[in-house]
Amino acid sequence: MIRGEHNDYWAGVLEEFFHTEIPITAHMGVEVVHYDRHNLELAAPLAPNENDKGTGFGGSLSSLLTLAGWGLLHLNAAERDIDCDIMIHKGKIEYLKPVLEDFTARCGLPEEGGLAEFFNRLQHRGHAKIDLRSEILAGNGCAAFFDGRYVAMLRKEQ
Amino acid sequence: MIRGEHNDYWAGVLEEFFHTEIPITAHMGVEVVHYDRHNLELAAPLAPNENDKGTGFGGSLSSLLTLAGWGLLHLNAAERDIDCDIMIHKGKIEYLKPVLEDFTARCGLPEEGGLAEFFNRLQHRGHAKIDLRSEILAGNGCAAFFDGRYVAMLRKEQ
Repeated sequence: MIRGEHNDYWAGVLEEFFHTEIPITAHMGVEVVHYDRHNLELAAPLAPNENDKGTGFGGSLSSLLTLAGWGLLHLNAAERDIDCDIMIHKGKIEYLKPVLEDFTARCGLPEEGGLAEFFNRLQHRGHAKIDLRSEILAGNGCAAFFDGRYVAMLRKEQ
Repeated sequence: MIRGEHNDYWAGVLEEFFHTEIPITAHMGVEVVHYDRHNLELAAPLAPNENDKGTGFGGSLSSLLTLAGWGLLHLNAAERDIDCDIMIHKGKIEYLKPVLEDFTARCGLPEEGGLAEFFNRLQHRGHAKIDLRSEILAGNGCAAFFDGRYVAMLRKEQ
């Protein structure tokens, strides 16, 4: 499989996973629109995620931001065949402007080597943490961002 | 109307508002279970809000926490007949333990006089901000908390 098909395969796996395992994401209309090992981009339509002002509901933006970081780690672990639970531990969110249309959330790995260190620590100690920034993109810029700390724990063998 | 009936009336107004104006809250099964001018408590069932581990999805917890603070301000404004838009500006969230059952989010006013000052400022300057803490309660304790900054702007007369 060439790299592009490989990435599309994993994007499809994640979208199916979201809709079956985290059912509210199906109601939100979450789609996985891009994945490579360094970046994940999720999309959601405005209509099911709007608030009383007809703009993006803060809770839906927060959910998509949280999922973008989580999904990027989840797929990287799956590609490496690492059996672990990944959880959001804490984060800071800031809303910069109203979201007036369909929107995406993008998360990229922070630096070369950061993810390798995370997985090394996970496999040696059984747990590890990593900080990731996700951004909501809508119209012509960033509408919100989330600095999240995620933790991972190796699953015990059955 | 006695005070208890008065509060129940406003709780019903808010629940109806959530479900019609913020449609994802209907899919989450959000209910308004308690309101008085100082406290708001929202509830949500686990099933539509669970994640791949069968515990509460962080995005749903974040949504309910955000709504608890927003709803408390919205009803206080409505009771005072103040026509304003209330928005979440930023916040910090921390997840303390997994949510294994149906859960609630509670928000209380921080101090005597804080809300009066907020509405005074809003009516004099046309905008104001306030910091509120909300907590997720599930099982026997607090499972997550959110320190949110909300902003309000008076609506211009038509």
